[in-house]
Formats: sequence, structure tokens, C-alpha cells
Amino acid sequence: MYTLGIDFGTESARALVVDARDGREVATVVHSYAHGVIDEHLPGRDRPLPPDWALQNPHDYFDVLNKAVPAVMQQSGIKPEEIAGIGVDFTSSTMVVTTPEGTPLCFQPEWQSNPHAWVKLWKHHAAQPQADQLNETARQMGLAWLDRYGGKISSEWFFSRVLQILQEAPEVYQTAGRFIEAGDWITWQMTGVETRSACMAGYKALVQDGDYPTRDYFAALDPRLADVIETHLSRKFVQLGSEAGRLTPQAAEWMGLRPGIPVATAVKVTGPGRMLMIMGTSGVHLVMGERLQTVEGMGGVVRDGIVPGLYGYEAGQTGFGDLFAWFVDHAVPPEYFDAAKKQGIHVHKVLENEAARQKVGEHGLLALDWWNGNRSTLVDADLTGLLIGATLATRAPDIYRALLEAAAFGTRLIIETFERHGITAEELVLGGGLPEKNPLLVQICADVMGRTLQFSGTTQASALGAAIYAAVAAGLYPDVAAAAEKMGKLKPDVVKPSAANKAVYDRLYAEYKSLYDHFGRGQNDVMKRLKSIKLEALTGHHAYLRPS
Amino acid sequence: MYTLGIDFGTESARALVVDARDGREVATVVHSYAHGVIDEHLPGRDRPLPPDWALQNPHDYFDVLNKAVPAVMQQSGIKPEEIAGIGVDFTSSTMVVTTPEGTPLCFQPEWQSNPHAWVKLWKHHAAQPQADQLNETARQMGLAWLDRYGGKISSEWFFSRVLQILQEAPEVYQTAGRFIEAGDWITWQMTGVETRSACMAGYKALVQDGDYPTRDYFAALDPRLADVIETHLSRKFVQLGSEAGRLTPQAAEWMGLRPGIPVATAVKVTGPGRMLMIMGTSGVHLVMGERLQTVEGMGGVVRDGIVPGLYGYEAGQTGFGDLFAWFVDHAVPPEYFDAAKKQGIHVHKVLENEAARQKVGEHGLLALDWWNGNRSTLVDADLTGLLIGATLATRAPDIYRALLEAAAFGTRLIIETFERHGITAEELVLGGGLPEKNPLLVQICADVMGRTLQFSGTTQASALGAAIYAAVAAGLYPDVAAAAEKMGKLKPDVVKPSAANKAVYDRLYAEYKSLYDHFGRGQNDVMKRLKSIKLEALTGHHAYLRPS
Repeated sequence: MYTLGIDFGTESARALVVDARDGREVATVVHSYAHGVIDEHLPGRDRPLPPDWALQNPHDYFDVLNKAVPAVMQQSGIKPEEIAGIGVDFTSSTMVVTTPEGTPLCFQPEWQSNPHAWVKLWKHHAAQPQADQLNETARQMGLAWLDRYGGKISSEWFFSRVLQILQEAPEVYQTAGRFIEAGDWITWQMTGVETRSACMAGYKALVQDGDYPTRDYFAALDPRLADVIETHLSRKFVQLGSEAGRLTPQAAEWMGLRPGIPVATAVKVTGPGRMLMIMGTSGVHLVMGERLQTVEGMGGVVRDGIVPGLYGYEAGQTGFGDLFAWFVDHAVPPEYFDAAKKQGIHVHKVLENEAARQKVGEHGLLALDWWNGNRSTLVDADLTGLLIGATLATRAPDIYRALLEAAAFGTRLIIETFERHGITAEELVLGGGLPEKNPLLVQICADVMGRTLQFSGTTQASALGAAIYAAVAAGLYPDVAAAAEKMGKLKPDVVKPSAANKAVYDRLYAEYKSLYDHFGRGQNDVMKRLKSIKLEALTGHHAYLRPS
Repeated sequence: MYTLGIDFGTESARALVVDARDGREVATVVHSYAHGVIDEHLPGRDRPLPPDWALQNPHDYFDVLNKAVPAVMQQSGIKPEEIAGIGVDFTSSTMVVTTPEGTPLCFQPEWQSNPHAWVKLWKHHAAQPQADQLNETARQMGLAWLDRYGGKISSEWFFSRVLQILQEAPEVYQTAGRFIEAGDWITWQMTGVETRSACMAGYKALVQDGDYPTRDYFAALDPRLADVIETHLSRKFVQLGSEAGRLTPQAAEWMGLRPGIPVATAVKVTGPGRMLMIMGTSGVHLVMGERLQTVEGMGGVVRDGIVPGLYGYEAGQTGFGDLFAWFVDHAVPPEYFDAAKKQGIHVHKVLENEAARQKVGEHGLLALDWWNGNRSTLVDADLTGLLIGATLATRAPDIYRALLEAAAFGTRLIIETFERHGITAEELVLGGGLPEKNPLLVQICADVMGRTLQFSGTTQASALGAAIYAAVAAGLYPDVAAAAEKMGKLKPDVVKPSAANKAVYDRLYAEYKSLYDHFGRGQNDVMKRLKSIKLEALTGHHAYLRPS
């Protein structure tokens, strides 16, 4: 039998048909969203969105079911009846605002022009004041769960957005029947049943030990929010590897599959002693621990969050592939595009090839990789990017390399933070699309960390994870560990660090840490003051940003 | 009668024919050097030059006499006998290494492949260790003249390069007959007489009160240097507005002029109470004072240095137009070049137009304008550029505007430093090519400083200055003040500051100053450590850079 894994990412989704016996990938389709990230203005409208907004259009998610799944089925040559189950992974927290029946509010003509009626993508950072309020209130009330989120809720988390809607668009809050993770929403569309992934609820919606924060907490945030769970959410949690529901005839017709097969929500899978580092648009670090630890700035720790019986720790880098893509799209002069055309390769590869010829430190640059804020360890969306060391001789490949290095320094800092709290990983495994595309990035990561890096057996780690959970939900394996053992293998190749490079990177990393602390921990809050001035210039109002 | 002013700049030279009665510009020719700035490898050779080298080819200077002067004469329609004199201004310190007869060493086949045989351009920054040694020795010996250079000799100054040649290429030092300012060298080629401009010698070669530093000082630097003045330089100083010599028949033939007319060395001219700010490749600030003051990080103060009877103070910004040109050449994506082509304008203008639509602070960025080091007030070529505040929404016009603002902040800081030492200017006058080309830059400068800005009556302030000195040397006026009164006028237009913009810029300037001190005054010497690592990567040797 086979299973289907669907991974909804930031710019695109991947559908993967996998042989459930051994994890062999039979077919893959990558589907780019038609609307992608909506951060300039709503479709068909001119009015610019405020800074830090990032929305999506749920039509893009439907397209994945309607187009990508039939395409991958056709490519696979597998018959619909050979698909035993479907697993869905979705970048979270990405929140859909719907009617009580599950129709996105932005599909309704009367709400179309209100940005708060649209899907708030994980990288929507405009709810930072609300995140600050969530943190402050939890601290004042001495709520223990705050530590499980590294001491700080992010603007990317679920209730930051709920509170933003309540404060900025109370009419949307009143009208909305449901606030729901997009992963749960698409599962609802497939199964006809509204459920909540226990994993996503744990990491993003403050569910710990089986429930949300108390009514008191919500009331303290805003009296109107006291009943939010009862009025807008649900406590019907589904554990990973359990079925959330079964495919409806209508959804089966969209997708060209058999009705009645189980649908499961999923996350990336990893095992104890292994850190899985997904390098895509953003970076995600997952590691298992047997004990509960609090770690500064981690994204969250949830028991059974990844694998039953273990604590799943998650951390992240908000700008990873995004950062390199920004650079290529907005800061590379024409000559490199001409060279790419001439050589018949992507401009990323031209830059990578030139950067790879350099010795470590040769470009004289250092960057803080905060173009999209900092998730771990500082949990601060108001931090911004920094580049130091530029001269008139600085060229695009120099900066490109400095950005790769900054991302690697950010990863090292996260790993060291985990290690300082006793959460160690003997194996570092790379997943996501970037490691295969960018060998220089991988070598830099190995050299910066001084660690041997392994590779997930698939470039579609998230979609494969979804297919693994689907196999468990379909009853083909007794549990996730057994399914992962058979279906999720590592590649035989490894990348080893160079000791000479590591020695130079240690010096650069020391500089990185010093700037990290200086600008990220309140010694000089210039980034926040610049952002305040920016918001004032754009809105005409005084803006206050909480100091680090 | 008419005079001819020639201004030798970094990338090009300008020849200007001026009516000596009223300063009217009859004709101008701008001539780009064929070799320009040699900073990658010597002409016809592959071996890369080390970082921070910047050389030139004296053939480029000859071309100005052979091509640009005949061209401007033809354009002017003036007969050769109507030209009463020639003035020469040259960006200094730019040093030619010659045989005793004045032939550049790099013209000789046996020396062609040695970079030290070539002209060291003012922006050659590789003599920083030697500048450090000059400063340290002068401090240890308690030499008073050091204060007249703001307490620090720059790597751009004359003896930094002489010492670099002695240490790194003693064979070139031994063989060289003369070390000479390029302005004095080209005057020598025109007149057949070797002289030294008292002004350039004062600002760049440590001549104070009529002589170089003592033999003891040179011997303390290196015993082999004890006789350097006697063996390699000259004390035949020529004051501004005096003739350095008369045009030889050979030079007259090259240039299409009459032999025997006086040739004078020149600088930009300004008067008391007025600061002249030349904004070109680099930025130069000239102001007169009646008393001798020491000012931190000024380029130099020389009595009679600009106008007889007054102290001429000079300060500078090593990266000005250079910085914006770097950005346009190396960090602007193709879409802006496409837009420029479509609109039939230069890409600078596309960026300027988009940047001009922004409110102050809207881009959220701040830069330190140190892409080419910092001349005033820190006198430190090892400082580098910094950009802070970047996000995924940052676009090229944002960064372009931030760089214009950084240059303006740097100018404000220089003016405030002068003012703190009692050297004030009621009038701020802009010269050089940039102010006319970039109205946004001028408005930003006015807003940042909160001062009304005036414009030199010419975009060729340096060439006009040269023509003014030529008129004095030719005896058409009794002194520089009288000539400048008639020939050097201001434009009627002024640019006034916006109080609202000034208020926001005051906040941004406070952030600029804080970063300036942090990275420029030793609180965090990361820029120098990055540069050390860079030099080590490139040379394989341990590099030590003096802390701030």
C-alpha cells in the first residue's frame, strides 16, 4: 500500500506518494500558490497593507487538493484504491478566520476588503504588541506554562493574532465563528469534521497538559476574550498518528482519491538523540528529550508533541531561505543574472559558486540574520537585519556568503542554547529543500558548528513525515516510531567539518554573539527605535515598541 | 583675457576655460581616465592587488594635457594667445614615484610589474600600518605638529606611502629619485621645473611653518629614512597664486597653447565665514579661521593654506559619491536598470525619484557611511560600512536613501566638530558635481543639518578655483581674494531645511552618533577584527590592526 503526504509551506505545497513498506518516494509534485504571500496589498486592491503583515488566500490551499494531488497521482501511476491514507502538514501558526460552518470570512463579499478576514500566515509579524501583552499578562499572573515557550510568546503564535483581531477589528471577531489553524481547516474541508491537531495546539495555541490557558487568563487580557475557547475554538484534539476524520466523497472527487480513507495531521518526524533541522523559507529545529526543560527562546515544548512519550522541543529561525531569496531578488546587480543566463543556471548557483571559492573570512563581512526578526532565541519580531564590514570592494557573492554564514551562526546559537540546558543531539539531520540545493550552505553549517551533518532521506521531509503519520493512521504500523523506522531513512552521505575553517568561524561566531547580545538584548535598542520611527512615518502616529 | 583651470580628480579630469573678468565659464570638457582607479590588478597582469590598494597610471594624466585641453580650447573658440595662465588642482595626496628626472618608475619595463612603482592614489589605504607608526612615533616624541592634523596622520597622507614603499619595496625606495605629489609632477611636466605646492605640502606632507618634520623624526621611523627630504623630496615650495613655472614649448604643443604662460597650483577657494563642501567621489570641507585651533580628526590646518593670512582648515569624507556609485554598481537589481532604460534616465535618478517619495524614517534603515573608511573625524581607514534595519520588505531605493542620509549625517558631524572648537561658518556652500545631479541629496543635507545651503556658481568648483589661481599667477588680479571676488560667485538659488524633517532626522542622527562612537571609538572593534581575519585569509599571515 501507499500513502499520500501533503506539506503546505509558505510559497508552495508539496504532494508526495510514498510506498508505505519502505518510504520509497513514488512521485512528487511541487505546487506554487497562485497568490503566495500577500504582504503588499489585498488581491485586486490598491491600498497598501501596513508593515509586517503577511496574509494568504485559502483558495490557494483548495488548489493543492484540486490540482497538485491529481497531478501527483497521475505521475505516480498508482490507483486511487492503493492509497491507504493521507497525512497533512502545514506551516503553523497560520490562522484561518471562518464562519461557524468553516467558510473563510474573506470569501464573503462584505468582508473581502477587510485584511483581518484573511488568513494570517505564520510570518505575519504585526501582532507584536499583542504578543507583548500576552507575555506581560502571563508573567504578572505567574503562569507556569510561559516557560514552556522559552519565556516568550511570539507574534507568530495563535493567540497573538486572535487578540490583534479583537483589538483592531472587533467586528471581525464578533462575526467570526471559528479561529482555526490552516492545517486543521484544510483537514476539516477534507473530512467534514472540525478537529484540532494536538501538536499544533500545543506548540502554537498554548495547549499544555490537555487544555488551553484558563478563562481567567483570557479575561485578564480582555473581558471580551473570556469565552474565546467556547465561542471560537474547539477542544476536540487529535493526537499525531490518529485519524482526524475520513475523506468525504466531495473531497475525494476533488483529489481523485477513494472516499473514506483516513486523514491525519502530521509534523516532521525525528527520534531521540537526533536533531532535525528543516531548512526552507524559515528554519525549524526539532529535538526530542526525555525530561521537561525550559530553554530560553525555544518555540515550545510539548509532551507527545512529535513522538508519543517524549517531549518535543521546537526552535526556529524566521528568516532562512527567505533571507537568501530576498538578497537575490532585491540586491544582486544585473551582471549576475546575465552570467546565470549564459551558464544556464540559477543566479543563486552563480553566487554560490563564486562564494564557494572564498576562504573563510575573506569577504570581511558579518551579518545578523534578522531580516524577518528573530524567533529563537530572542522571540522578537521587531529585530532587524544588520550587515557590517562593507567596503567599496564588496561584491554580491561576498554578501551572499555572509548571509549563509549568518544563518549558520543563528543555527549554532540555537543548538548551543539547547545544549546548555541539557538537551543534546548526537545526530544533526538536515531536511527541507535548501540543503540539497545549496551544498555551500551545508558545508558552512558543518564548519560553523564543527559537527558532521547527515541528510534526511528525502528533500520533502515534511511531506514524508505526513505520509508516515498517514501510514500510522491507516493502521499500517502500530506507532510512529515503527513507521519512521521503516519509512524515514537517512541518506548515506554525510558532510564533515573542516577543522581549519571551524577555527576561523569560531572567531567570527564570537563577533556574531557579541553583536547578537548588543542589539538583541537591550544594550542598544536602535533596531526598535528605527522601527518606531518607521511606523510613525507611515501612520502619522506615535509608535511604542517594547524594549528588548 | 581668459584662464584655463584643470582639475585632476579620481576617475576623471575637468578642463575649464574661464573669462578672467567675471568668472564666466566659456567651455568645459570632462575627460574620463582610460585606466581610472587601479584596484584589482596592474594593467595587463592577472595577479590581484592586495586589499585597500588604489593605484593610477600617469599616462592618464598626460592624456588630459594631450586630449582634454585641446578639446576644451576648440570648444571655447578662444585663441591660444588669449589664455593668460593655467591653474592645476589635483586630488591629493596622490604620489608619483619617479626617476631623478621625473620619469615615472612604472614607465620603465624593469619596474612595471612592481605595484610600488605606480602612482598611489589618495584612496590607497594599504599604508595604514605605516600611518599608525607615523602617529605613534610623533606622539612618543611629543611633536606639536600632530595636533594640526587632528591628532592623527591618515593612511592617505604622503609619508604613510613613502614609509610603506621603504618597508615593503626597499628596492623601489632605493631606485626612486623622487616622491612627488601628482599635482606637482604634472606641473613639472608642463613647466620643466620641479616645485612643491606649499598648500599640498602643508596638508599632506607635514610641512608646517615652512619645513618638513625634522631629520630626527624620520630617523626614528627608520634610520634609512633620515635623509628622505634631501634624497627624494624638495623644499622648493610655491605659494598658492604664485607661478610654479612657465609652460615649455613641448607642453604648449601637447596642449595647443602658447609657451611661456604661467602655471600655478591651486586648491578650491573659499572665504572667511563660509564653509565650502565639495561633494564628489569623496567629500571635502574647507573653512577659514583667523586663529589656530586644533580640531579632532580634521584633515589638516595650514596657515596660508587656502587664502593668505588665514588658517585653512580641511576635513573630509572618504566615501561620498563613491558610496552611492558602489551601491548602484553592485547592489541594485535588474528591474531598476530596466526602468531607467524605459524612462531614458540614469538608474541613479530612478532610485532618487523613488527615494524622494518617502517620508523621513519610513525605510527604517540607518547606515554608517564608512565603505571607504572614515577620514574625519576618526582618521581610520580600517573602519567599514554598516547597514542596520533591513527587513524582507527592504528595497533598493530604501537603502539608496539610507546611504544618502548617512553621508549627510557624516557631514553634520564634521560641521558640529568644527563648531565645538569655535570654527563656525555662517554660509554653507556646496560645490562638486553631486549637488547639481542629486537634488534629493541636497535636500537631505539641508534637513539633516537644519541649515540653508547655497551653491557654488559652478559645478566645477575645483577647476574654477584653479582658473582663479591662474588669473592671480598671470597678474590679472593682485591677490586671491580679489580674483575670487570677481570670478567666484554663488548661485542665486538656495535650499532651505524643513523643520519637520529636521525633527525626525535629529532622532536618527542621535542613533547615528551612538553607532559612530560604538564602532568607531573602540567600544567594539569588530570592524578591525573582521579586517584582520580578512587579511589573514588573503595573505595567510597573522594581521594586526591597531585598535581605535
